[in-house]
Amino acid sequence: MRMYDLISKKKNGQRLSDEEIQFIIKGYTDGEIPDYQMSAFLMAVCLKGMDTEETIAMTMAMAHSGDMLDLSAIHGIKADKHSTGGVGDKTSLIIGPMVASLGVPVAKMSGRGLGHTGGTIDKLESFEGFTTELSEQKFFDNVNQMKLAIIGQTANLAPADKKIYALRDVTATIDNISLISSSIMSKKIAAGADVIVLDVKSGSGAFMKTLEGSIELAETMVKIGNGVGRETYAVISDMNQPLGSAVGNNLEVIEAIDTLRGNGPEDLLDASLTLASYMVVGAKHAKTPEEAREMLLGTIKDGSALNKFAEFVRAQGGDDRAVFDTSLFPKANLQKEVCAVKEGYITEIHTDEIGMTSLILGGGRETKESVIGMKIHKKLGDKVEVGTPLATLYANDASKLEAASERFLCAYTIGEEKPEVPNHIYGIVTKDGYQAY
Amino acid sequence: MRMYDLISKKKNGQRLSDEEIQFIIKGYTDGEIPDYQMSAFLMAVCLKGMDTEETIAMTMAMAHSGDMLDLSAIHGIKADKHSTGGVGDKTSLIIGPMVASLGVPVAKMSGRGLGHTGGTIDKLESFEGFTTELSEQKFFDNVNQMKLAIIGQTANLAPADKKIYALRDVTATIDNISLISSSIMSKKIAAGADVIVLDVKSGSGAFMKTLEGSIELAETMVKIGNGVGRETYAVISDMNQPLGSAVGNNLEVIEAIDTLRGNGPEDLLDASLTLASYMVVGAKHAKTPEEAREMLLGTIKDGSALNKFAEFVRAQGGDDRAVFDTSLFPKANLQKEVCAVKEGYITEIHTDEIGMTSLILGGGRETKESVIGMKIHKKLGDKVEVGTPLATLYANDASKLEAASERFLCAYTIGEEKPEVPNHIYGIVTKDGYQAY
Repeated sequence: MRMYDLISKKKNGQRLSDEEIQFIIKGYTDGEIPDYQMSAFLMAVCLKGMDTEETIAMTMAMAHSGDMLDLSAIHGIKADKHSTGGVGDKTSLIIGPMVASLGVPVAKMSGRGLGHTGGTIDKLESFEGFTTELSEQKFFDNVNQMKLAIIGQTANLAPADKKIYALRDVTATIDNISLISSSIMSKKIAAGADVIVLDVKSGSGAFMKTLEGSIELAETMVKIGNGVGRETYAVISDMNQPLGSAVGNNLEVIEAIDTLRGNGPEDLLDASLTLASYMVVGAKHAKTPEEAREMLLGTIKDGSALNKFAEFVRAQGGDDRAVFDTSLFPKANLQKEVCAVKEGYITEIHTDEIGMTSLILGGGRETKESVIGMKIHKKLGDKVEVGTPLATLYANDASKLEAASERFLCAYTIGEEKPEVPNHIYGIVTKDGYQAY
Repeated sequence: MRMYDLISKKKNGQRLSDEEIQFIIKGYTDGEIPDYQMSAFLMAVCLKGMDTEETIAMTMAMAHSGDMLDLSAIHGIKADKHSTGGVGDKTSLIIGPMVASLGVPVAKMSGRGLGHTGGTIDKLESFEGFTTELSEQKFFDNVNQMKLAIIGQTANLAPADKKIYALRDVTATIDNISLISSSIMSKKIAAGADVIVLDVKSGSGAFMKTLEGSIELAETMVKIGNGVGRETYAVISDMNQPLGSAVGNNLEVIEAIDTLRGNGPEDLLDASLTLASYMVVGAKHAKTPEEAREMLLGTIKDGSALNKFAEFVRAQGGDDRAVFDTSLFPKANLQKEVCAVKEGYITEIHTDEIGMTSLILGGGRETKESVIGMKIHKKLGDKVEVGTPLATLYANDASKLEAASERFLCAYTIGEEKPEVPNHIYGIVTKDGYQAY
């Protein structure tokens, strides 16, 4: 087998066999296939496509390029959730405790945040003492005992994906459904969960700008997952504006706690319940998503989800008192309201700009200051006057606060007509296809 | 400007500006753009195409990447011929003397042969003492005095093309009309001739297998040449079988001399006259190709072309006695007839296999033995019996002769029905488009 012939085959629009795809992934990971051949191949894939079988073969070849986690020491059907990324996405913090308090094991291996969004671990480290440096045994024990644990990514998951992603990132070969799907799914499959629920974002702030594109991506990933024996669902959610109102590490934790108490923003609660309900159904703890949703709502009403969250924080060394009294979290020294400079309706929110604002404030990974961030007060379709506060920004540095507030204004478009506001959830993809919500 | 954005633009099927293409070619030649980005770009070009303007911009950027020859010291309109390559192609040896004896200056810078075909220089070195190591001044003087000289490639012509071609060769990005055209034309334009006549081969033994493909390639190159002020013509000729009957360095020289004497194979004479007539027309020494053809035939009839050839060989240090007595050329020690093993008509000749046979015999560049090679006796459409000689092979090594004769048989397909034999010339592309011959 020669890489040249396989590039040529894909360039001519022919399909590749499982063995051919394995040859490419292994050869590239081992350094036998050079970057310049791989990038030509990836461009051919972008322009000629891969079918479902090829995409599954690529996913599995990448999954098997490193460690495949064995979660069999954990009792029961393990469920995992993955989001395609978004500014202010804190659903994991809400879903984990709800699902775990229904007895569904959630064993999460998580990375740090990339770029302008903090990861789940960054957010959880808002609790003093919280650590994700658990031994494997402790991780398994915690999940078996309390159904919820998180560990920093220690295993070498899908190294092929890491190497290929880095190449795609510099050769304009990112935006292909098969390549995106196999990249996400190879890591999820290697991470070992039995049930995978995907949160596929759609809209201006998401990788997929159109609903059609998001559905196609979701359907491909659901086919891959189910094709290799992992029960997989995808929820397609809106990313034309941030979910909830908090952006920034401890501000998001506080908003998650408010939600677990039943006092959170409605869109955030609804999105969390929807995602969680498929984890519960997938793990066979409920027959229908509707039934699961009622059960999950129950964990908020009776306080069991909040208690589970505290138990989980404590078990990983964190000071859990803040779960019950969020005023214990440290606060930024400075804050500033950013106000509308014209009257009208909010017609667009550029979430990329919100992310940039957060970065300027010192959020994300650049500095790990957990206290900075923002609370958004006005969202799509809201009516504002000149001077109506759009958001409050929090920082420890006056010059950053100033720069960030200017940037924040770029994120908002105010128009004369009240816009159509998209649902925060568009629909669900199961193995039976897409269904609008 | 960023290479990433230009890859992305081409991937999305957008056209690139002259400046953008110059940025890519210069950046890659200078080593600022890495191979893996260039190969992704080349694959996008293969699958999304470039228009004529883009192709011209790429050609000129590659031409200007190295030396641009200045032939202004040579009087008159300089004409050059280029063939897209073929086994047993010796038309240059016939055309040069004919055209020069009509007063049209032919200043040829030529490379060695690649792979299984010897180049024009390899063939001319069959004359004892012949050298292409001329000073630039001597080269110009010779052309001014006798209208014909050949020099080994000393200038750094189109280094961008060299580097890009090497990358295309390993990334399955060879077969794109714009990339092939710009590769050929960048070198021809840098080589400085005013009139360029291209011999575009078509058929099983050529790069372009179909007539449509050959016409498209020819039209693109003619547009490029005329687009940058070089009068350019392309003759589309058949490569479903070798031209003439000799393959091998001194055997081809002998066949060329026979042709200059009026005793050559008809197809070879006709192809040479056709190509030469456009050089004569381009150089304004005749009004029409028909008129030029008559003049060229005259140079054979009156012996002036043969004398010109001798004068040229002598001027470059060669022993020209062999021009008038080809029995003076050394001969191979061994020869062998390869005969038909079944009765019927010759329906296919795989010229690639003829090339391989020549390579096994020791032809081409591998060893520079000028005496080895073959004379082909039967061509497409000929009827043969069992035992009819198809060709005579010449070599100095019995085991090579044996291996080559087995290989030679693979080149021929003998069938029951007399096949349609293609014309050896299909047509001409001028700036007015394609015209069948």
